[in-house]
Amino acid sequence: MILLASFLCASALHGKVIFEKVEYKEADTVCEGLLIYDDAVKGPRSGVLIAHQWKGLTDYEKMRGEMLARIGYTVLCADVYGQGVRADNPKDASALAGKYKSDRPLLRARINAALDFFRKNERVNPKQIAAIGYCFGGTTVLELARSGAEVAGVVSFHGGLNTPTPADAKNIKAKVLACHGADDPFVPNTEVLAFQKEMRDAKVEWQLLSYGNAVHSFTDKNAGHDNSKGAAYNAAADARSWRAMELFLAEVLR
Amino acid sequence: MILLASFLCASALHGKVIFEKVEYKEADTVCEGLLIYDDAVKGPRSGVLIAHQWKGLTDYEKMRGEMLARIGYTVLCADVYGQGVRADNPKDASALAGKYKSDRPLLRARINAALDFFRKNERVNPKQIAAIGYCFGGTTVLELARSGAEVAGVVSFHGGLNTPTPADAKNIKAKVLACHGADDPFVPNTEVLAFQKEMRDAKVEWQLLSYGNAVHSFTDKNAGHDNSKGAAYNAAADARSWRAMELFLAEVLR
Repeated sequence: MILLASFLCASALHGKVIFEKVEYKEADTVCEGLLIYDDAVKGPRSGVLIAHQWKGLTDYEKMRGEMLARIGYTVLCADVYGQGVRADNPKDASALAGKYKSDRPLLRARINAALDFFRKNERVNPKQIAAIGYCFGGTTVLELARSGAEVAGVVSFHGGLNTPTPADAKNIKAKVLACHGADDPFVPNTEVLAFQKEMRDAKVEWQLLSYGNAVHSFTDKNAGHDNSKGAAYNAAADARSWRAMELFLAEVLR
Repeated sequence: MILLASFLCASALHGKVIFEKVEYKEADTVCEGLLIYDDAVKGPRSGVLIAHQWKGLTDYEKMRGEMLARIGYTVLCADVYGQGVRADNPKDASALAGKYKSDRPLLRARINAALDFFRKNERVNPKQIAAIGYCFGGTTVLELARSGAEVAGVVSFHGGLNTPTPADAKNIKAKVLACHGADDPFVPNTEVLAFQKEMRDAKVEWQLLSYGNAVHSFTDKNAGHDNSKGAAYNAAADARSWRAMELFLAEVLR
C-alpha cells in the first residue's frame, strides 16, 4: 500500500559502466587498481575509494564499484597489496592482511597512495571523496581516516575496529560510519567498545550500526550462509547497510 | 552534483491532516489518544502507533504523528497514563514514568489497549501496524513487543532498553530497531550490552543504531543543546534516525 522509493539522480544520462585498470605507485611498489565510472558522465563527479577484503582486489570489490558507478559516483578500487599480489585461499589471505594489520604505517601509506592517485583523476572532484571498505578494507579506511587524510567520510563494513594508535583519532577529518555484525566473532564487544571510546574521546563525527544475527562478511555472498562458521552472508544486513551507506554518501558528498 | 531524493508515495492524493481526539479504555481507566491521518486517504492504511515521552502525550508526539500522516500512515498517539494525566515538569514526569517502569504488566496492558483500539479503526489495516516510541515511549514499545503483540515492527528512539523480564524476548514477533545516543548517560553501555544479549538469545530480528555525540532526547528540540546536561537535541542524529525509521517502516509494512 505504501511504496518507498529512493533514487540517486545523476546529472547525466546513464551510459555504459567502464572498468579501467590503472597503475600507481607507493614508494617503489607498483599497485594495480580499478577505475570504474559511467561513461555518460562528463566532468568530475564525487568519488568513492574502495578498500578490498583480505584476499586483495577481486570481483567482489569490482561488483560494489559497479553499483556505485551506476548511481553516479566515480570509483577507484584500491590495491593495497601491490600488483599481482592476491590470495586465493584463507591461509594466504590471512597472512597478507596480517602483514598490513601489524604494519599500520605501511597500510596507511598504501591507501593514501591510492587516494592521492584517485584525487588527480579528471573524472573526480578532488574535494568530494569518500572511502569505503569491507572486512580488512574496513580496517584500512579507518586507518586512512586516522592518518588525517582529507576525505569527507569513511564507511567500514564488517571491518576490524581496533588500532594500535587510538590517540590518532584526533587526526580524523572524515565523518565515520561503521556497519557491524552484532554477532561477529572477529570483532568482539571489547573491540567495539574500545572503538566507541576512541571515537568519543577524539570527538569524531561517528555512527556505529549493529545488525542483529549478522556475523563477519555479512555483505558477501561468497561467505555462505552458516553463521556458526563466524562469517556468512546476511541479506537483511547487507541491504540495510548498503542503504545506510547510500544515505551517508549523499550526506557527506554534496 | 549528486542528488539523493526519496519519497513515500501514498495511494491517494495528499489532503489535509486531521487530528481527532479518541477515547478508549484499559480496564477501568479511560485513555485519551490522538488519531492522525491524511483526509485524502480512503480505506485502510498501514498504521503507526506512537508511545509518548515521560510527560505523557504532548505536542511533540502530535508533531511526529503529523510527519507520519503526511507520508501516508494512519497514526495513533497512545495515552499510557490515562485521560488528563500529564506532567508539566521533570519531577512529576519522572514519578509517572517511574510508576509504569516499575509495573511492566500495567505498562504492557496500557499500550496493548491502545493497539487493540487502533487495530479496530477503519482507517487502519489491522495486519500492518508498527509502533514507535521516544524516551519512556521507547521502553514502552519494547515492552509491547515483549508482550508478544502482533506488530510488524517497533522502533525505540533514545528509549531505556532494560527490562525486568529479558526472557520474555522469546515472545517477540516484531522486528526491532533501537536508535540510541551513544553518549546517553541514562542508557549506559551495560544496559546496551544486556539488551543486545537479550535480543540475541531470543533470536529476535533486531538492529541497534548508535549515534556518536548524541545523548538522551536527541530527537527533541525542547531538550536544548547542552550535551553536558545528559539530554539534548542533536540535529544529525535526529535526521539520521528518522530516515532509518522511514526505511524500517517501509520494510516491515508492506
